[in-house]
Amino acid sequence: MLDKKNLREGLSFYNTISRKKEKFVPLNPGRVGLYVCGPTVYGPVHLGNVRTFLVFDVLYRYLRWLGFQVKYVRNITDVGHLLHDADEGEDKVAIQARKEGKHPMELADHYTRYFEDVMQTFKLHPPNISPTATGHLIEQQGFIEKLSQTAYAYSSHGSVYFDIHRYAKDYSYGSLSGNKLEEQKSLSRPLQGSSAKQAPEDFALWKKADPNHIMRWPSPWSDGFPGWHTECVVMSQSYLGLPFDIHGGGMDLIFPHHECELAQSLALTGNPLAQYWLHANMVVFQNKKMSRSEQSTLPALKDFEDLRIFPHPEAFRMLVSQAHYRSTLDLSETALISAQKTYLRLINGLKTLKSFQTPRASTPQEDLERKIKKACEGVWQAMNDDLNTAVALSHVFDILSYIRAVEEGQATLKDLSPETHTDMKNTYIACVEEILGFSFPQAFGSSELPDTRIDLLLRLYVKNKQAKDYDSVEIIRAYFKAHGISFQERRDGTLSWKYT
Amino acid sequence: MLDKKNLREGLSFYNTISRKKEKFVPLNPGRVGLYVCGPTVYGPVHLGNVRTFLVFDVLYRYLRWLGFQVKYVRNITDVGHLLHDADEGEDKVAIQARKEGKHPMELADHYTRYFEDVMQTFKLHPPNISPTATGHLIEQQGFIEKLSQTAYAYSSHGSVYFDIHRYAKDYSYGSLSGNKLEEQKSLSRPLQGSSAKQAPEDFALWKKADPNHIMRWPSPWSDGFPGWHTECVVMSQSYLGLPFDIHGGGMDLIFPHHECELAQSLALTGNPLAQYWLHANMVVFQNKKMSRSEQSTLPALKDFEDLRIFPHPEAFRMLVSQAHYRSTLDLSETALISAQKTYLRLINGLKTLKSFQTPRASTPQEDLERKIKKACEGVWQAMNDDLNTAVALSHVFDILSYIRAVEEGQATLKDLSPETHTDMKNTYIACVEEILGFSFPQAFGSSELPDTRIDLLLRLYVKNKQAKDYDSVEIIRAYFKAHGISFQERRDGTLSWKYT
Repeated sequence: MLDKKNLREGLSFYNTISRKKEKFVPLNPGRVGLYVCGPTVYGPVHLGNVRTFLVFDVLYRYLRWLGFQVKYVRNITDVGHLLHDADEGEDKVAIQARKEGKHPMELADHYTRYFEDVMQTFKLHPPNISPTATGHLIEQQGFIEKLSQTAYAYSSHGSVYFDIHRYAKDYSYGSLSGNKLEEQKSLSRPLQGSSAKQAPEDFALWKKADPNHIMRWPSPWSDGFPGWHTECVVMSQSYLGLPFDIHGGGMDLIFPHHECELAQSLALTGNPLAQYWLHANMVVFQNKKMSRSEQSTLPALKDFEDLRIFPHPEAFRMLVSQAHYRSTLDLSETALISAQKTYLRLINGLKTLKSFQTPRASTPQEDLERKIKKACEGVWQAMNDDLNTAVALSHVFDILSYIRAVEEGQATLKDLSPETHTDMKNTYIACVEEILGFSFPQAFGSSELPDTRIDLLLRLYVKNKQAKDYDSVEIIRAYFKAHGISFQERRDGTLSWKYT
Repeated sequence: MLDKKNLREGLSFYNTISRKKEKFVPLNPGRVGLYVCGPTVYGPVHLGNVRTFLVFDVLYRYLRWLGFQVKYVRNITDVGHLLHDADEGEDKVAIQARKEGKHPMELADHYTRYFEDVMQTFKLHPPNISPTATGHLIEQQGFIEKLSQTAYAYSSHGSVYFDIHRYAKDYSYGSLSGNKLEEQKSLSRPLQGSSAKQAPEDFALWKKADPNHIMRWPSPWSDGFPGWHTECVVMSQSYLGLPFDIHGGGMDLIFPHHECELAQSLALTGNPLAQYWLHANMVVFQNKKMSRSEQSTLPALKDFEDLRIFPHPEAFRMLVSQAHYRSTLDLSETALISAQKTYLRLINGLKTLKSFQTPRASTPQEDLERKIKKACEGVWQAMNDDLNTAVALSHVFDILSYIRAVEEGQATLKDLSPETHTDMKNTYIACVEEILGFSFPQAFGSSELPDTRIDLLLRLYVKNKQAKDYDSVEIIRAYFKAHGISFQERRDGTLSWKYT
């Protein structure tokens, strides 16, 4: 029996800030506040980004399935993210807009729509709130004003900077990333003579806009725009309170982005913003970490569809689920082809499982009972152990072996007790559909079975074969092949089909 | 020959502000700035709203087809739209949020997504920029500050109001709506004793927030939120300049919303904001104008899909196109059933037309040549005459008669000269697909013909009939019927099919 209350109490995550697995204890019993850093919309979101969002999509689904009331906030950065994450350079949206001859907000609108399309294509559940940077300027200005009144920030030449060295006297700068300030100093670009910063490690809270920078707003300090690190620290607590439960994002955000969010929060309130910091690792493509600054990305939609090796976005979801979210993910044609096959085995198993009736009488096979019970427990143990979807899936595949054995006549439904049968069914469906978020291939519509079109064609196939109309038989066979369906005759002459 | 330059110069619109049709002359040759008031996202967008957006969708498509470079801005009101348009009451988003137990931004997020789903379902082209009220608070505050420094606005009890009577001394309040200020006075609710307003007709530019009003921002006057009428006057000029070409919206917005936008613009700059004010009329449903305040709406998506009388959203697009945009639109089951049939005739005609080859040799029939040429000219004359889509469609149907005559063997392609044939084809396709925005029924995929699945089944049908396998024949026939396809045998034994 699935005891969700028990499971909720057994949940643990690896917390970046403590560098160890911790039991998850929400601030408010039964509720979870989750903030994930979203896309910067000056270009198409790439598969590295999608991996991160998929990881937190699974987290969100699992928390809800466990019975938590979750408030999920994921922002959209439509201004302020400068070219070099280390805070130099020009606003990324502004640069791209100029390249494309568009107003920055036009560009942001376009790539926000693209991002939402991608999220829909990969079937991610939308968050509860998707705040934009431009939609929270007054809040950011208020926050910066307050910080300005502390020793940790200073104005200079119309910009406002966070004083890292002053902060490091009272706090431990680098507690999230493990970076040492001294090492940072040697890595930073030396300040230009005319720089407004006191030290190269300092980062902008508010940046005075160059004359040709279109995105600009009046402020107490200058016409300018907010720094990237301020946006998230302000919006997250604005909707989730301070502190909130979980702050998520890609590992590339640990430093400087999340380190700087944490610093601002501690500097202003003594509060570390979030209890648990979860980070998803990078996608590696052609030996390079997938990141726009490395210019080694695969735009998530267009190229994906063109790469005819994986017509199902679910193949990427499978690839992601089969890896541990804290490991790098190797993306290649081979890996995706393999993941696609795995997904199809899994989804065909789901199709078959849903057609099983609970046995009324049974003669349980002891070894099998034990194996299936162990697999079911294993799924939840794995999920509770820092979202180990890879191990959870291996247990799901143990269940799948049994499903296929039944399908092929090597086992029967009677081999399990009704109770274990129910447990098995619930576990497989919950894990595969509700938590890992897989669904049936798009081309064949909903998850209702059987698909009327396929059914029709199968019936025609049978009749045509009986009537010895082999031309028609061949037409149908070719059609199925072109549409990713394969079928075979059972011994009794009926047809079974599956996605290929 | 379609001379688009000529057509551009022949374009005219009915301008609400002058109450007459005017030749359209853009401020910048070859470019058009278009602003349309978008949805308030505290509830599901309804078919009355969708009608308005469809009207401006056609305008946008037509302007682009004519060769203009169009910048299309359509806002999203996520705060500030008070319960009573006359400016009393509570923020609509806030009220609904409290009802649903959600943060107002959660509600706004949810109904923004709903709105975008509806826009996709009805296949509207997205605008270039979709600015939100919350994303332009600083701009609105700047505008209100400037207005405050004129005689036309005053602060009172933390709110800022527009002084209608002072404005009426220098300008003509009511030039857009035709309303007289004296009449307004008698219609307005009398001021409560403690009201901050000097006169009931005055409207809020900035509203001080009640203690329990979640959506609030600091400002020079109070913690509060902007008035609804300020949002659009600020965002439109922000992206399109002052003045810009066309300001659009539903007729229910003429007063007070657009009248107040105009007043603010004139008061601050002497500039009437936009050259052309275009308004789409209301949808009438069950004898009531469809408007949320009347509580007589049909949520655009869910109920639409449930009303199985029109599985194609295109049926609604047809209903809208068949009416003049300045007339009310009667919505009923009967009207939609009829519109659906009309749409199907039109789209089947498109399917057939695309299969026509231009005749190499021809023996043009004089009457027919004249009739078709007249129809082609008529389409563009009608579109240029204040977007008379209804008359344009009547000309398209004249062309359709000929297409069907050819299909049924009562006419041939040789009956038209190659030039007229090309003109006819271009006109029909441009009008139906590019400008009115119709596409083939969703269930059968893209507009590429023939659909492989239908083709397959037709081939099987033919073979099965030849093999006297009437069971299979019946199966296929029933399947087609259930999926909205009908077919018939031509005299030569081949099959033709059409959507039903």
